[in-house]
Amino acid sequence: MTADAIETPAVLIDLDRAEANIRAYQRYCDDHGLKLRPHIKTHKLPRLAEYQLAQGAVGITCQKLSEAEAMVDAGRMQDVFISYNILGSAKINRLRRLAERIKVSVVADSACVVNGLSDGFANRELPLPVFVECNTGADRCGVPTPQAAAILAHQISVLPGLSFAGLMTYPPARQATKVAAWLQQARDMIRSGGLDVPVISSGGSPDMWQAHEMPLATEYRVGTYVYNDRSLVERGVCRWQDCALTVLTTVVSVSNRHAIIDAGSKSLTSDVLGLEGYGIVPDHPNLFIDQLSEEHGRIVSRHGPIDLAVGDRLRIVPNHACVVSNLFDNVTLSRGNRLIGGASVVARGKVW
Amino acid sequence: MTADAIETPAVLIDLDRAEANIRAYQRYCDDHGLKLRPHIKTHKLPRLAEYQLAQGAVGITCQKLSEAEAMVDAGRMQDVFISYNILGSAKINRLRRLAERIKVSVVADSACVVNGLSDGFANRELPLPVFVECNTGADRCGVPTPQAAAILAHQISVLPGLSFAGLMTYPPARQATKVAAWLQQARDMIRSGGLDVPVISSGGSPDMWQAHEMPLATEYRVGTYVYNDRSLVERGVCRWQDCALTVLTTVVSVSNRHAIIDAGSKSLTSDVLGLEGYGIVPDHPNLFIDQLSEEHGRIVSRHGPIDLAVGDRLRIVPNHACVVSNLFDNVTLSRGNRLIGGASVVARGKVW
Repeated sequence: MTADAIETPAVLIDLDRAEANIRAYQRYCDDHGLKLRPHIKTHKLPRLAEYQLAQGAVGITCQKLSEAEAMVDAGRMQDVFISYNILGSAKINRLRRLAERIKVSVVADSACVVNGLSDGFANRELPLPVFVECNTGADRCGVPTPQAAAILAHQISVLPGLSFAGLMTYPPARQATKVAAWLQQARDMIRSGGLDVPVISSGGSPDMWQAHEMPLATEYRVGTYVYNDRSLVERGVCRWQDCALTVLTTVVSVSNRHAIIDAGSKSLTSDVLGLEGYGIVPDHPNLFIDQLSEEHGRIVSRHGPIDLAVGDRLRIVPNHACVVSNLFDNVTLSRGNRLIGGASVVARGKVW
Repeated sequence: MTADAIETPAVLIDLDRAEANIRAYQRYCDDHGLKLRPHIKTHKLPRLAEYQLAQGAVGITCQKLSEAEAMVDAGRMQDVFISYNILGSAKINRLRRLAERIKVSVVADSACVVNGLSDGFANRELPLPVFVECNTGADRCGVPTPQAAAILAHQISVLPGLSFAGLMTYPPARQATKVAAWLQQARDMIRSGGLDVPVISSGGSPDMWQAHEMPLATEYRVGTYVYNDRSLVERGVCRWQDCALTVLTTVVSVSNRHAIIDAGSKSLTSDVLGLEGYGIVPDHPNLFIDQLSEEHGRIVSRHGPIDLAVGDRLRIVPNHACVVSNLFDNVTLSRGNRLIGGASVVARGKVW
């Protein structure tokens, strides 16, 4: 079977490239004494999570509880970190059931969240490891100051059913010195209160090759590196030939000024990540996708003729790979140009 | 069961509002002698398609063949228009199988597309009705000129297995006069060649209440009107109280400057449609969503305090309802505040 036989639009995953990306970053982490805990949000495939673990990852990261449940149901996962505040009795009951099956750790950034977790885990023999999420500048979740981190760490350590697992941050890009100062202050305050800080977890694909510049971190979380995408190529993090996910599309209409492909925002998403247009056609560097509607992508030329015909097939490298994985129930796996089958994206759409 | 029991993020559909929207626009079409052929892309639910048909719609519109297959498999659909160029033997075989079950019509905008359709339907007794898609200014698909429309209509009429069904356009907004002139010229040229033009199909939600200003159209396709969304409220097409789809979210983190909800781009999408931010919180008009990542939405205040606590629940009206429906396997149905159950979004993710 060749790509010609695939109905479009379709997501193709080149396993050779994905596995090479996994090995390369595992080697970097090994060389720098960093533990790697990859985020499955990019691939959502048990098969690739198992490959990451086989290469040396210490466990996986999931953003939502339902992602963790899906991965544990479908693959051999023993150690899952859920990097999200988990709230409400329904979710905490689910978390507890998951914690009966495998090692689970979570984060919290407020007393409200840790109290809820403690209520759910109080009568359990093995405590739930809880990280304190730290807002080191990305202004998303996280306690606002090192002092607040120290207070919350202490609360976790004394609440029934919980153990303090360490500090976790999703740092702003290119701010290693500032982030390190923040985390060091928090760590020192927590230690001076008599608590150990077993793990300091940082992450992010844009800074992945500079992770060693913040030696305070003991673990690193990274997701997009497995497939890479246009945003990471444009930031100089990887090369086009490292992009393992492409969207295969068919040209369905051609005019003097543009061509239309059968992949729109339901295949590529509207994520621009600061870039112009909605993906790149590596085989046609003069073309770019200037407009999407749900089922149509419009291709225009920067210079020269468009030179496409109805029925032509194009492979697009999307701006953002993770969100594309979230749109497709199934992907097609290849090794180079040889197709080897399909895979169900088991953690797709798991937002709750 | 109340909304408190639902795990978030979740999509809530108020059936009372959706059905009122369907009835109101059916009445408008009836009053103006327009046939209504609603686009199912917004709801993707057989139940609501059946309601649309029961109120007087002449059939449904699907953008992709797989949407049509999903709707026909799951609901009582007898007449489906697929407003998309269908290419390739695999898809044309599927189209033919679908045409054995129900009445199907399609569009084409090139000889390449009509030749493929003819090859697939040549040995069939009942011809496939094919519309000519006209680019009347939206610069997506469509033949570029009325002359090209007339030539393609003639080709369709003489090719084995096909019948010419009429003209179809997805017009640019607020250009009724220009669009009408384009279509009239095409119609007159086709008629002067001895062909009838049975149907002229136009569409689009932003102009839905001005559809009668282009009396040339005999059918109108509209999708978003069933749920409405922030983009249509902001354009003056509907009111907040007409919005039938909301995303129920939980506040998971609060700081001095912002709050974080558990709905990010995997729930709300990155579609901005020219608006600022990623949705509106009707119960808190001073708040808006200034930033999304995949699982986090960041809420800031335009003025005054944020006044939210961890655990609070918010209902968001998204910028664009259709793309939200495409992210969720299931939605929760209500009548007003009374929950009445769930529904599988059977045409979700059907892009091929």
